[in-house]
Amino acid sequence: MADVLFKKISFIGIGLIGSSLARVIRRDGLAKEVVACARTEETRKKALDLNLVDNVTDNIALAVKDAELVILCTPIGAYEAVTKNMSGSLKPGAIVSDVGSVKRAVIEAVAKNIPKGVHFVPCHPIAGTENSGPDAGFDTLFEDRWMIITPVKGTDETAIERVAELWRRTGSNIEYMDPDHHDQVLAITSHVPHLIAYTIVGTATDLEERLRSEVIKFAAGGFRDFTRIAASDPIMWRDIFLNNKDAVLEMLGRLTEDLGGLQRAIRNGDGDSLQSLFVRTREIRRSVIEAGQHIPPKPPNGA
Amino acid sequence: MADVLFKKISFIGIGLIGSSLARVIRRDGLAKEVVACARTEETRKKALDLNLVDNVTDNIALAVKDAELVILCTPIGAYEAVTKNMSGSLKPGAIVSDVGSVKRAVIEAVAKNIPKGVHFVPCHPIAGTENSGPDAGFDTLFEDRWMIITPVKGTDETAIERVAELWRRTGSNIEYMDPDHHDQVLAITSHVPHLIAYTIVGTATDLEERLRSEVIKFAAGGFRDFTRIAASDPIMWRDIFLNNKDAVLEMLGRLTEDLGGLQRAIRNGDGDSLQSLFVRTREIRRSVIEAGQHIPPKPPNGA
Repeated sequence: MADVLFKKISFIGIGLIGSSLARVIRRDGLAKEVVACARTEETRKKALDLNLVDNVTDNIALAVKDAELVILCTPIGAYEAVTKNMSGSLKPGAIVSDVGSVKRAVIEAVAKNIPKGVHFVPCHPIAGTENSGPDAGFDTLFEDRWMIITPVKGTDETAIERVAELWRRTGSNIEYMDPDHHDQVLAITSHVPHLIAYTIVGTATDLEERLRSEVIKFAAGGFRDFTRIAASDPIMWRDIFLNNKDAVLEMLGRLTEDLGGLQRAIRNGDGDSLQSLFVRTREIRRSVIEAGQHIPPKPPNGA
Repeated sequence: MADVLFKKISFIGIGLIGSSLARVIRRDGLAKEVVACARTEETRKKALDLNLVDNVTDNIALAVKDAELVILCTPIGAYEAVTKNMSGSLKPGAIVSDVGSVKRAVIEAVAKNIPKGVHFVPCHPIAGTENSGPDAGFDTLFEDRWMIITPVKGTDETAIERVAELWRRTGSNIEYMDPDHHDQVLAITSHVPHLIAYTIVGTATDLEERLRSEVIKFAAGGFRDFTRIAASDPIMWRDIFLNNKDAVLEMLGRLTEDLGGLQRAIRNGDGDSLQSLFVRTREIRRSVIEAGQHIPPKPPNGA
């Protein structure tokens, strides 16, 4: 009952996101052939061992040869070099897509390397866990999550729709958005929360030895959740912050102002201000629950 | 096979923590009689309907009469008035304990109201969820968590041990700590993380309407976890910040400095600094996992 959407799909990089998508493709037979290009021998071996792909290579040009769909799944800082290297080997009519968490900078880095007759469809699935690598993926990761497409002006509608259909098969809902707006929304919903988690866990690592070991021991008081977020892939996140600089700094500015206000309220013993904020934030949680976005993804191993 | 540890236990306030402890007491028959004192008719009715207690009242003096153990489970801002009201009705040899998240301010507010011959054992179980009220509790909440006792100098060792034994029956591990040190550790592991979560969710609520609705829609990118933390009980948390002011402000100062450093690194495109921090924070997560404190509590209804 295989319903082949693409003859050959090539993954450039195959970590948490790429391998989760590959699992869906294999499970439902959505491609005749799946290939992964990865830099390390370890990743290539895992991708084969897990039966995520038919073939592996470290040669980008070879990987994309004859591919109908190429999906960039490396950290976004590598996109420019990667697409430059594949440019001459893409077949006419092929589609290049990605899963990067920033869209304006990605479009700038990639679009110039896409030859005439090849279609570029920038994508971002809003899903993930703190784990990395091909063995961290699972085929239900995208179920009931949003997948945002930020089309480049003038892109072939059929190409966009073919990519959208692939993602619908993962169980995600498709949303179309302007790339700059995407970057602003993601700065608030994802990038700044990660930066804050990294900061607070970083502050804890700088504590004197005894205090640090107690912070770990008593992490169940709230710190635990921050350590989870701050365990996300370091290179992927370095690239996100470097490539969404303006929106992240703008949001961080607002946050710092608000934090200053709370600091003053605590210093002045102003309980009413604190309580009224805490009541308001509780309502946002209610909205997130109503929107069905409150349940964290459940990897099958229950990690 | 009931193993009665106390003849009568009285809960003053019975929310998430109190009702979870009451469930263990009832499940294992650890008290002959359990009573709850609650301000609202709704809470009293729930406590009875859920069979958490034998009796309910809104009269503190009546609630503590003949009790061998009285456990304060209200927001800590109410402790001073509550213990003043019960002072004349406590029976000689009774133990007063609590579950508050701050210990120095609690000892100052409570100790003066404890009559001679009554023992005060300040406690803090490091466990919880974002939900509140007697129906939010569950009997496994404390399993494999820490319960910190911050003994007041000169307190009867037997009284401390009786309280410790009750908590051991919940599955928690007992730790003894100096109250000031407790407040410092909790400022880092719990209070500042909650304050940051409240701030970031608050910043999002102030966004223009369209952006706010998108933040909720795409919360799965990381924001979700902050909304969960920022849904915690407003009055309980107001009281925590007001009563652990110094440690919270000190920690917040360190955090703000570190955040400034990261902000500069992003502005200057300093990827190496970002990456090296993100690698360090990942190691802390590993330590939290090794310490077995990484798994969030699982309420039986799976909420």
